[in-house]
Amino acid sequence: MNRHFDEELGELKERLLYMASLVESMINYAIKSLVDRKEELIKEVYSHEDEVNKIQVEIDDKCLKLIALHQPAAQDLRFITSAMKINAELERMGDQAVNIADSSVKLLKQPPLKPLIDTPRMSEIVKKMVKDSLDAFVKKDVLLAKKVMATDDEVDGLKDQIFRELLTYMSGDSGNISRALELILISRHLERIGDHSTNIAEDVIFLVEGKDVRHHLGGEI
Amino acid sequence: MNRHFDEELGELKERLLYMASLVESMINYAIKSLVDRKEELIKEVYSHEDEVNKIQVEIDDKCLKLIALHQPAAQDLRFITSAMKINAELERMGDQAVNIADSSVKLLKQPPLKPLIDTPRMSEIVKKMVKDSLDAFVKKDVLLAKKVMATDDEVDGLKDQIFRELLTYMSGDSGNISRALELILISRHLERIGDHSTNIAEDVIFLVEGKDVRHHLGGEI
Repeated sequence: MNRHFDEELGELKERLLYMASLVESMINYAIKSLVDRKEELIKEVYSHEDEVNKIQVEIDDKCLKLIALHQPAAQDLRFITSAMKINAELERMGDQAVNIADSSVKLLKQPPLKPLIDTPRMSEIVKKMVKDSLDAFVKKDVLLAKKVMATDDEVDGLKDQIFRELLTYMSGDSGNISRALELILISRHLERIGDHSTNIAEDVIFLVEGKDVRHHLGGEI
Repeated sequence: MNRHFDEELGELKERLLYMASLVESMINYAIKSLVDRKEELIKEVYSHEDEVNKIQVEIDDKCLKLIALHQPAAQDLRFITSAMKINAELERMGDQAVNIADSSVKLLKQPPLKPLIDTPRMSEIVKKMVKDSLDAFVKKDVLLAKKVMATDDEVDGLKDQIFRELLTYMSGDSGNISRALELILISRHLERIGDHSTNIAEDVIFLVEGKDVRHHLGGEI
């Protein structure tokens, strides 16, 4: 391995961290537009999406070139293929933030439905998962990766709770149905962002330990 | 490139096709359990999931070893990294089939809600997308890949239509709400399977043309 290669890996990390920060902002703007009822914040989500899409293509390109030029083996190869996977996860998180923004557009056209319930809290937890999963990748921190994986259960619990509460709300007054439905969908989008963070955390463990923890199969390479 | 390497690429294709056939079966069983109201079919979905998960780990492992041992360049490298991406897409499709099965479990505990509406039709279209996207990959068939991408709009249209019809159904009778909600979620899971097929189709075009058609950015490497 040469110094140039190390520098390129460093740049790759930087780009992924930057992409993650954009995705965090997208989640933030999407939820904030809903909580503060400010439609102008939704535009921010869409403009960030364009940038995330461009960076995704750029990072994939960079990864392929790094493999082709430097023919890395063992952990370096795993690092680059992990970066490609994380790249895809981040882009999909961005798509979910866009889905939330789309729901927010619909909700802001109607009077507010009182209970946003635990949606803002759920979004805070999920943003932290995004940040932590990327930090775990950059620092090769297995403990932090496992913390992200543990948080996923908490997010699933919140999603179920939101679902139950909104279902009651819909049954009580059919005028609430379409708005409550959008809120249920939003909680599903947030849950999916949590899932993507969990996927990244699993990639981190694979990267560091060479052990595949997906599906608890424990295969090693 | 040597003959041994070619054979290994051939095996990789076979495994991906096999994995895709398992995923198609999972979708089939999940929807059929709902249409025929046969709970025993749901077990098939879960047992297939275990197998899909095992194959995913095996394929990823195989891809990394192929890169490390043969240090492929250009189209061969893109083929292997595409295989890794397609592998991940297929596993996620399996997850969505499991989500449908979970909804089916809940729905079969209650009397049938009449309108499955376009759910069975949507599932037929989506299964075809799964099959076509993998065929396009194996045959490096750009036209077929583009056909898959075009079908995605049709699936989105069906999803919106199902949503509107079930919303009316819920508003008409609050006793329908929880069941109609599950059907809405099922249509979302099907839509997502279509999205994964579209991702695969985009990978195929990238593989063959070296052109990144995601987000219509048209970058070339």
